[in-house]
Amino acid sequence: MIKTKRKNYIIGIDIGGTRTAVLFLKNRKVIKRKMIATPKDKITMIRELKRAIEEIILPIDKSKVRGIGIAVAGSVDSQKGIILVSPNLLWLKNLALARILEQKLGIPVKMDNDANCFALAEATLGAGKGVKNLVGITLGTGVGGCIILDGKIYHGAHGLAGEIGHIIVIENGRKCACGLRGCLEQYASSQYMLWKAKDLSSTEEIAKRARMGNKKFLKIYAEVGYYLGIGLVDIINAWDPEMIIIGGGLIHGWQWILPSIKKEIKKDFFPSARMVKIKKAELGGDYAGSIGAALLFKD
Amino acid sequence: MIKTKRKNYIIGIDIGGTRTAVLFLKNRKVIKRKMIATPKDKITMIRELKRAIEEIILPIDKSKVRGIGIAVAGSVDSQKGIILVSPNLLWLKNLALARILEQKLGIPVKMDNDANCFALAEATLGAGKGVKNLVGITLGTGVGGCIILDGKIYHGAHGLAGEIGHIIVIENGRKCACGLRGCLEQYASSQYMLWKAKDLSSTEEIAKRARMGNKKFLKIYAEVGYYLGIGLVDIINAWDPEMIIIGGGLIHGWQWILPSIKKEIKKDFFPSARMVKIKKAELGGDYAGSIGAALLFKD
Repeated sequence: MIKTKRKNYIIGIDIGGTRTAVLFLKNRKVIKRKMIATPKDKITMIRELKRAIEEIILPIDKSKVRGIGIAVAGSVDSQKGIILVSPNLLWLKNLALARILEQKLGIPVKMDNDANCFALAEATLGAGKGVKNLVGITLGTGVGGCIILDGKIYHGAHGLAGEIGHIIVIENGRKCACGLRGCLEQYASSQYMLWKAKDLSSTEEIAKRARMGNKKFLKIYAEVGYYLGIGLVDIINAWDPEMIIIGGGLIHGWQWILPSIKKEIKKDFFPSARMVKIKKAELGGDYAGSIGAALLFKD
Repeated sequence: MIKTKRKNYIIGIDIGGTRTAVLFLKNRKVIKRKMIATPKDKITMIRELKRAIEEIILPIDKSKVRGIGIAVAGSVDSQKGIILVSPNLLWLKNLALARILEQKLGIPVKMDNDANCFALAEATLGAGKGVKNLVGITLGTGVGGCIILDGKIYHGAHGLAGEIGHIIVIENGRKCACGLRGCLEQYASSQYMLWKAKDLSSTEEIAKRARMGNKKFLKIYAEVGYYLGIGLVDIINAWDPEMIIIGGGLIHGWQWILPSIKKEIKKDFFPSARMVKIKKAELGGDYAGSIGAALLFKD
């Protein structure tokens, strides 16, 4: 009989703009899941997360929980466990969430950016399983990114590596919230698509029309792919990854986006551009982010 | 008395378009240097390098030589020791120079791209001494680059990381030899400066006029800095290095280039853009590349 490892439980949490996903894993398998409304202030956030975690671990001995991983959309100081700034949850600014929960619960807590957790999940269990050196990109309202190096999140010198969305693709292009102009995020995102579609209020409506063969809307997806292709060429030439995994909400249009990505990349004569694998993310659904968060404790 | 290490000699070679530098180091100090005309075909190249190395190591026991490091302008398969393609020395294509010299001389040979060797030298002995995570960029006829990670050259998944010169800075810009358009190399290089200057035949002549305060020529340097700034923003946001070291021939115009680099980077609100150090290369002269080549054997 194999002796069960003592600390074989992990909790993964993904704090989203409106909903927060909480997962409970035993030996990397999900044994419980819970979705709560994202609280609206710091004190409620701490109280609600503490309550959700205590509830979920109630049946087992706390000492068997290896840790709690948290994914947050925004800049995170993963070393200090502080949310620096979250564009959709501005009131989270400077909250030392990881340290506070660690003290209140007596369980180690790690926290990272949600795109980093996405890429870690894909690199560990998804499209990049077994690949050591890859770049993960999420296309949604904005563009998130993460560099995975030797199977781990690469944080850079100041914890801010992977801001792929702020690669400049168009000189003096659309103004970005980051202060720059022409960032990838201003083009390969749902904000761009809705701006181009004018009268429609969701990418689902754009997709519906594209599916019916409407050229105007198919062209919007092709443009997303074109701009993403420019950004990917920069990444490939500078960083030469083995694989690039693309996920996020816009992936519903993969069939219309991918051809124009490939068209751009093909122009590049470097062998790295021909050898890099461009893959669609495999782990989808509401809990992909929290799986990545839990994997912050994979080692 | 400290016992002298046995293998404390290293040879560093930098194969340039017209001249080839050969250095002989003992305990990282240069004890001999030699400049030869770069041979014009494969057979002469091998024969001349072999002769130069044998001459230089004549006074000592061959077994005391740790290795021979070679820097080449172009794509190098550093694992296999093959020159894939050298734009200025096309006849070097597919030459397994490292393996051949290794067999002929019985001394280990390592070979790498010249921009990689430049960055390794700067990271070890120059402006980046003590810095673990940096990006090196050379501005000359083209733009070379290298990512240094944990003090070592980062080669990427296919040995082609660091092609900073082929980051796209202008959508549909000037056509590049790499097949793309608008590459950084088409703007932050002497080819661009001479194209802008029209009637002048060297960057020295441009510099002379800039030094006299001629606005037209000062503006050319400012443009180089502007485009370089766009490229550096991409690097900073994606890669978050601790330092960026800039070297190469155009560095004579550092005082005119730097302000416009800084102006571009300042637009970026990410803290990484404020914290990254932008430094001028410290190791100059004819032998900087060969020092970097010798440092391929630093460990």
